Amino acid sequence: MSNSVTLLAVEGLPEIVQGDDLGAQLGSVLAAQAQPGDILVVTHKVVSKAEGQVVQLVDVEPSAWARKWAARWKKDPRQIEVVLNESDSVLRMERGVIISRTRHGLVCANAGVDRSNSPGETVCLLPVDPDGSAGELHRTLSAKLGFHLPVLISDSFGRPWRNGIVNIAVGVAGMSPFADYRGQDDSHGYRLEASIMASADALCASAELVMGKTSAVPAALVRGYAYEPGVGSAAELIRAQHEDFFR
Amino acid sequence: MSNSVTLLAVEGLPEIVQGDDLGAQLGSVLAAQAQPGDILVVTHKVVSKAEGQVVQLVDVEPSAWARKWAARWKKDPRQIEVVLNESDSVLRMERGVIISRTRHGLVCANAGVDRSNSPGETVCLLPVDPDGSAGELHRTLSAKLGFHLPVLISDSFGRPWRNGIVNIAVGVAGMSPFADYRGQDDSHGYRLEASIMASADALCASAELVMGKTSAVPAALVRGYAYEPGVGSAAELIRAQHEDFFR
Repeated sequence: MSNSVTLLAVEGLPEIVQGDDLGAQLGSVLAAQAQPGDILVVTHKVVSKAEGQVVQLVDVEPSAWARKWAARWKKDPRQIEVVLNESDSVLRMERGVIISRTRHGLVCANAGVDRSNSPGETVCLLPVDPDGSAGELHRTLSAKLGFHLPVLISDSFGRPWRNGIVNIAVGVAGMSPFADYRGQDDSHGYRLEASIMASADALCASAELVMGKTSAVPAALVRGYAYEPGVGSAAELIRAQHEDFFR
Repeated sequence: MSNSVTLLAVEGLPEIVQGDDLGAQLGSVLAAQAQPGDILVVTHKVVSKAEGQVVQLVDVEPSAWARKWAARWKKDPRQIEVVLNESDSVLRMERGVIISRTRHGLVCANAGVDRSNSPGETVCLLPVDPDGSAGELHRTLSAKLGFHLPVLISDSFGRPWRNGIVNIAVGVAGMSPFADYRGQDDSHGYRLEASIMASADALCASAELVMGKTSAVPAALVRGYAYEPGVGSAAELIRAQHEDFFR
């Protein structure tokens, strides 16, 4: 446990467009900013854009159902069509809101499809394989920088029961997504229960404090946090449905 | 938006017991550590302990139902009794897990009742009025330090769909719990949708990076985050049930 942890906005990254080599661009700006022990948090949008996970709405032919539902709730039927296509299953679709489970197992509003920050009549999807994308960035950047740099890919999600969005980890590489306190006796000798911290989610939530939704800062470094070593994946953060008492 | 934010463990706080003047004790250690612009995050446990929100299990008479259910799932029936007493409503009670809604409107496992870190055969409850407790600490500490110090009271919660716990804010005073990006045009001219960040929750999640579940660090300072001014309350973070599409 560190006495202090610092969150640093990554400066100087150009606007990312489809086909960009995000690893090379991050490597260039991080060479002067990153240190051994740091963790990199990258917003999914720049990953998705570089990978071409962007849909031109002019190319989308909405179904009759998407048209009907969109008209009722004053939504863009093409965007509704994209959201449904990105959904493995729909948990709720009412009053203009779609809560669904993506192919990654993520439960969120609009299947992670985001219109803001995409140029023109386009929407931005989640990366096809965020853990794979995180792994590629982790290997590229660790090689370029000469030290081990864990990479987290973040997105902002709504939650049940609570207002407001928080950042969570949709991709993880180079560290365990957890800090496991089970079995450590606390100062009074009790075993701690329910004591697996989703540290990858906490790290992504904290990175938001320097990234901000509207700023042009799509990445942050976390310095001074003693993460648990591991290969890591965001898939481990997805709760098995049969074990989910919170549903 | 800052270029950097620093999370600092608050050092030197003695172990808090019932009847302690937490504001005075925090004031003493913060005098040398806090700066104008800082935010204080305090774990609910020290607040609850100081306020006497601690139950001696020897004094608890479990109901027949609590005995039966506890026996089936190998739990302490007295602790089950306390959890039920702390619950306004029970969402799920199966396989040894109780998910309920507390009187504060918080949905969590075991109604926030925690056995770890409480000495002897005791359990620690949530504060009766966490926003009130945060307000009192905020006023006491701001007066003592001579500058405005927002106070967040944190607890670690499980979440639906995701493994691992994260810290959230159960009490807020001296700042808005949100960062509201609605209506700000992003760089491509779209209004951002779904863009109210639960910054109090993000701040509590980030404080965990220096507090840790097992360490003796029950408080942290967040330095460099430009919070939104406001009176603030954690009650604002509770989603109205009829608006909750995530349930």
